[in-house]
Amino acid sequence: MISTQSSRSLYESYRDRMRKIADVKNASNILQWDQETYLPEKGAAFRGQQLATISEIAHELSTSSELGSLLEELNGRNDLTRQEKRNVELSREDFLKQKKLSSAFVKKMSETISRSFHAWVEARRKNDFGIFAPSLDELLQLKREEANFLGFEDHPYNALLNDFEKGCTVSFLDDTFSGCSGPLKQLIDRIAGCPPINNQFLAQYFSKQDQWDFGMKIIGKLGFDFSAGRQDISEHPFTTSFNNRDVRITTRIDEHHFSGMLWSCIHETGHALYEQGLPESEYGLPLGEYASLGIHESQSRLWENCVGRSLAFWTHYYPELQESFPEQLGPVSIHEFYRGINKVHPSLIRTEADELTYHFHVIIRYNIEKLLIEGNLPTREIPECWNGLYKQYLDLDVPDDKRGCLQDIHWSHGSFGYFPTYSLGSFYAAQLFEKSILTNAEIEGGIKEGNTKPLLDFLRKSIYQYGRMYTSGELFAVIGKESLNINYFLKYVLTKYEDIYNL
Amino acid sequence: MISTQSSRSLYESYRDRMRKIADVKNASNILQWDQETYLPEKGAAFRGQQLATISEIAHELSTSSELGSLLEELNGRNDLTRQEKRNVELSREDFLKQKKLSSAFVKKMSETISRSFHAWVEARRKNDFGIFAPSLDELLQLKREEANFLGFEDHPYNALLNDFEKGCTVSFLDDTFSGCSGPLKQLIDRIAGCPPINNQFLAQYFSKQDQWDFGMKIIGKLGFDFSAGRQDISEHPFTTSFNNRDVRITTRIDEHHFSGMLWSCIHETGHALYEQGLPESEYGLPLGEYASLGIHESQSRLWENCVGRSLAFWTHYYPELQESFPEQLGPVSIHEFYRGINKVHPSLIRTEADELTYHFHVIIRYNIEKLLIEGNLPTREIPECWNGLYKQYLDLDVPDDKRGCLQDIHWSHGSFGYFPTYSLGSFYAAQLFEKSILTNAEIEGGIKEGNTKPLLDFLRKSIYQYGRMYTSGELFAVIGKESLNINYFLKYVLTKYEDIYNL
Repeated sequence: MISTQSSRSLYESYRDRMRKIADVKNASNILQWDQETYLPEKGAAFRGQQLATISEIAHELSTSSELGSLLEELNGRNDLTRQEKRNVELSREDFLKQKKLSSAFVKKMSETISRSFHAWVEARRKNDFGIFAPSLDELLQLKREEANFLGFEDHPYNALLNDFEKGCTVSFLDDTFSGCSGPLKQLIDRIAGCPPINNQFLAQYFSKQDQWDFGMKIIGKLGFDFSAGRQDISEHPFTTSFNNRDVRITTRIDEHHFSGMLWSCIHETGHALYEQGLPESEYGLPLGEYASLGIHESQSRLWENCVGRSLAFWTHYYPELQESFPEQLGPVSIHEFYRGINKVHPSLIRTEADELTYHFHVIIRYNIEKLLIEGNLPTREIPECWNGLYKQYLDLDVPDDKRGCLQDIHWSHGSFGYFPTYSLGSFYAAQLFEKSILTNAEIEGGIKEGNTKPLLDFLRKSIYQYGRMYTSGELFAVIGKESLNINYFLKYVLTKYEDIYNL
Repeated sequence: MISTQSSRSLYESYRDRMRKIADVKNASNILQWDQETYLPEKGAAFRGQQLATISEIAHELSTSSELGSLLEELNGRNDLTRQEKRNVELSREDFLKQKKLSSAFVKKMSETISRSFHAWVEARRKNDFGIFAPSLDELLQLKREEANFLGFEDHPYNALLNDFEKGCTVSFLDDTFSGCSGPLKQLIDRIAGCPPINNQFLAQYFSKQDQWDFGMKIIGKLGFDFSAGRQDISEHPFTTSFNNRDVRITTRIDEHHFSGMLWSCIHETGHALYEQGLPESEYGLPLGEYASLGIHESQSRLWENCVGRSLAFWTHYYPELQESFPEQLGPVSIHEFYRGINKVHPSLIRTEADELTYHFHVIIRYNIEKLLIEGNLPTREIPECWNGLYKQYLDLDVPDDKRGCLQDIHWSHGSFGYFPTYSLGSFYAAQLFEKSILTNAEIEGGIKEGNTKPLLDFLRKSIYQYGRMYTSGELFAVIGKESLNINYFLKYVLTKYEDIYNL
């Protein structure tokens, strides 16, 4: 029956179905956004149930046999545009991947995740990994099964990595991390021999309203469109998008420490600019989605670090910041400020780490995840392994589980393979930033003058407009005629930190 | 097959299906709440589409043959509790009613409503009813068809009234309105002969923050549970509920007029107390829903008018209000204040009307709706008819359509039969309030001391806990052993306004 239909009409049926699925998934995103920002305390249990119902409906629609038939019919049709073909190809990939997991398995996974998240919350509260271990163990068993259902080459962890960064493998990550850990460690050791930077001025009282106002100003100046998005307060900063015309970010404000708020604003703005820049006409289709998590993270890190922690950026904005906080920052020179916000210091908490030590937090998690998925590390031995690696890589003694292996939410959500995308984000960002500067001289000059529009235009043109058209590897090949090269990142950190620490 | 299943297991399947439907409908309510409070400007079109998708899914689930079979199986089973039987009975009624309208008809209606809403917005902007008339005409044609599909006795308008107030009929409303319009008109005429009340003191500058703070205080004192709800700002105040643990109200603030904000807060709190008081265990089932729109409105009006515009209430709260606004209200005595907030004055806009003239706004709309549904008033002649009735009932000249027949959103939404519930709400409220006072002497005394808990307890016990167990008529029979009696309302307004105007 279907095969007699024109490609045009089939494609439109496919597109309409995909948009409907996107509407349902976005409804779920709105419910989640509300949960993190405005939900009254007693509403949590019902909200959990409402979210489960909506997710179930989205899953049913995404795996319906009608969608499957449409995709088979459209697959290989020659009278579609290149973009349309790519949409069909990617949707079919997603569909077949989802179909590899039975409904029973998906349900079991979601129940185990729910239990395991509650166990993690409880374990953190009581500072006792033992409370989390049994459900984490069940979850890991399921993740190993998932890897088998999905299929993989060489290593089961590859199946999971693929969920977050398509094509990413253990062998690629082993190479990448071994390529950077030596030089990074050397740099950190050289810095450890220097007199410590004093950044106590960041720990003064900065009023909530003044921080909020300055953050909102910077967000707007970076190009965030407030008529197509908003910022609110939440416990943990995040970005969510319901379509390119409604992109929401959140921040949190500590009145006794300045750095938390502002760089989280810039980080989330980086994510949001990407979401606002995705092609509207492709709503609901793969080409309306971001390329990969690593590329998404490269956008937040490029703006947060390469721009927001650069001397060039503060050359323009520091006088404005001093004007907003004359008492606190009036006596602090721009050089003291610049050095203060880039202080390198090994610490226990990943989300508070500096640009250099950060990657050892990721490498530690990556190594543990590999062992867990291989089945070569019993779940109950995670704390010992974790603490040993923190000693080895950062020379730190982990005092308890809360500041150790219980600090991140990811495992309790069943996200294994996510952490590496954080480091990939930084590596991509450095390479992209250098390429952008080589492409257009106005980019570097613009930042010094508070004009980041040339940079944003470069990113829109090189990344945003393509959605998922290209993988991260292909995107980089298009932009700079080479794939990810860790030397860009190493050059970026060496240049920056040798200057900051007068090495 | 199904008939061999136990009633228990059938009932649980039914309950689970109903809860899932409620989850989807509540997701839609959350999206609508966000639309009215926080949605960025450019997000409107996508939000409309997302809402349409979610509504379509809710409709499919509510009319599925699986639900129909379950309801038929459960209908008449004797081994269910009284409450369970009532749930099944009401769900079956709702189901059969929905099935009377074909999917094609529902879709056509929803498209016509969407067109007609946009035409109404445009017509209002250009102050020209002619722009709205053609799509309103189509909509009326569909509403007449709807009445025929649904079936009715005596008058097609009865089928539509039934949607908002079950069992409400033209003959009941004709009797009720004719029973009150004479005495109301007489009272208004007597007041027109008195020296006008001066309430200019309400039109001073009252800062946004101070108004908000006082409103929030009153809402909390009336018993609104802020851990199970919240208040935000929107263009038009409304109440919405996602379950009894997440009930949200909104208000608006005019810094140059005090009365807008506070009584809208009290009004919406009345709705919200009802929603927060519905039985949680019946979530998604009829007994977890409100009895009728008229009863809902009786709650908002009881709190807004019988309580919030009473001398007793302000005996306690006026000193606090004066403390919040010493400059504006310091020189105003409580009697001046009480008379000022109850000033009677015929005016063009329904939502700004006083407690007496309000009902003529409703009677006018009721009469026009009857004629329209009968087919005895051509759509294009609405403005002439409207203006004639305003002259006849309130002796007012309507200067234009915006302040005339274009002022309300209801018709553009296809809501014909809604307006009468506003008046019924006031009539029910007066009767309920008097009954409550007769039941428990602490209620009246409590209000004077700022303690409205005895009143709230009475309403919880008499109304909230039952959900949809009883119709409004049955509820009143239970509470006071008599059905709606307009004399309670007439007595309430005569006593109050003869005192205020020294008649």
